[in-house]
Amino acid sequence: MTADSSGRSLEERVREIEDRFEIYNLIASHTPSADTGNGAYVASVWTEDGVFDRGADFLRPTGRAEIAAGSSNPEHHRAIEQGIAHFAGLPYVRIDGDTAVAVSYLQILVPDCVGPVFDVPNHGAGRGFHVHRVSANRWEFVRTPDGWKIKSRTLRPFDGTAPARDILRGALEP
Amino acid sequence: MTADSSGRSLEERVREIEDRFEIYNLIASHTPSADTGNGAYVASVWTEDGVFDRGADFLRPTGRAEIAAGSSNPEHHRAIEQGIAHFAGLPYVRIDGDTAVAVSYLQILVPDCVGPVFDVPNHGAGRGFHVHRVSANRWEFVRTPDGWKIKSRTLRPFDGTAPARDILRGALEP
Amino acid sequence: MTADSSGRSLEERVREIEDRFEIYNLIASHTPSADTGNGAYVASVWTEDGVFDRGADFLRPTGRAEIAAGSSNPEHHRAIEQGIAHFAGLPYVRIDGDTAVAVSYLQILVPDCVGPVFDVPNHGAGRGFHVHRVSANRWEFVRTPDGWKIKSRTLRPFDGTAPARDILRGALEP
Repeated sequence: MTADSSGRSLEERVREIEDRFEIYNLIASHTPSADTGNGAYVASVWTEDGVFDRGADFLRPTGRAEIAAGSSNPEHHRAIEQGIAHFAGLPYVRIDGDTAVAVSYLQILVPDCVGPVFDVPNHGAGRGFHVHRVSANRWEFVRTPDGWKIKSRTLRPFDGTAPARDILRGALEP
Repeated sequence: MTADSSGRSLEERVREIEDRFEIYNLIASHTPSADTGNGAYVASVWTEDGVFDRGADFLRPTGRAEIAAGSSNPEHHRAIEQGIAHFAGLPYVRIDGDTAVAVSYLQILVPDCVGPVFDVPNHGAGRGFHVHRVSANRWEFVRTPDGWKIKSRTLRPFDGTAPARDILRGALEP
Repeated sequence: MTADSSGRSLEERVREIEDRFEIYNLIASHTPSADTGNGAYVASVWTEDGVFDRGADFLRPTGRAEIAAGSSNPEHHRAIEQGIAHFAGLPYVRIDGDTAVAVSYLQILVPDCVGPVFDVPNHGAGRGFHVHRVSANRWEFVRTPDGWKIKSRTLRPFDGTAPARDILRGALEP
């Protein structure tokens, strides 16, 4: 079996590629999960002891059950009924055996209710959306017998202060 | 040849990875296609019987020729001359043999012509962009002798109603 | 060793997949690099003779040292302290042996300081962000003994003129 310069077998290399796509899908599914408020899905993708840290302005749910509850509470569903959309950019992903780290950007958009109406040829008319928040996200994943799970997610808003930048630096390692 | 727990050969696993990248590229190319109004390209990536469903506010072109015509008509080119930009997030992709499903987010941005001018250090001055629409997209792909093609695409706007969420739930399956 | 219709070995196919992910990560890391102003990182991912062309309104740094300096100068750091966020969409990537091309979309967002305050349930209150620029980016990469490096990057703003569209057409090749 052919090995690369690191001595890994082709099978090990293919498995790491599959791991990477599984992690891409976990990140890609998180916005549909947030925008539907699906607690059962959330519970299925976090580890039992996961930690979701959104910064000092928000609760810091710990453990799969608390995180799932926070993602599907009535207040969150009010945001969903207003048309909130979470929007994920291309993530940086680094895998190291049975653990992995990702750094990603996230936008939160909400329908605008005060601005002027724009009428765009072939694309309808409307007030459009307001970009409410942009955040830097650090994800830590772990391989389990049931596939890759989220062990921690830390997000910090872009507001000119250092915490978002501290997260971003995790994407600049070799 | 090494097989994984599902009994697939390494070659089958590598082919599925290549399939996945081909589908990523189809989604990534769709925004350049929309923003240049390239009907010939559109015709080349849809199946003969494809269906593009943008919801009740828009025409519902059926078949490769109609879809290509809709993507390159004069009204669409007026939007292009105004500077419209389609912007795609990270998609969720699931492959099952010769078919595949993706769920993706899409923003449509248009240059703002009424807001205040912002002058950002090292990044120029201008009125910036208005996020005109955000939509949830469900793509169905099929493998053909000429590569993967789009069989259907259904998009629904984020506006607080259920149809966008119905699409998003397709990304929460295992 | 199984070969596909192009006659490539499985090892060659796996290497191309790894190449692709390395390029995805280079694109994904570029926004954290820009938003932290990290010149040392920038120098590490460009070729010695790289060219970064942002269009007629900006300097056109040539060579790794100039590009790194441009990405970390005091003016750029003022934008960072204001909370600037670069946001990358899903890129189109095409690999051809030891060279590769990518076409990607980029948004530049800045915190809004003049608009109304929005209070979104479960997502805090604030003035949100302004999408300052949207650009089309063409990247050319080359494989080196130290991994894939950026040889050139050309970006043009969406403003209704032809240069952005000229870049986008690079994503519509087979």
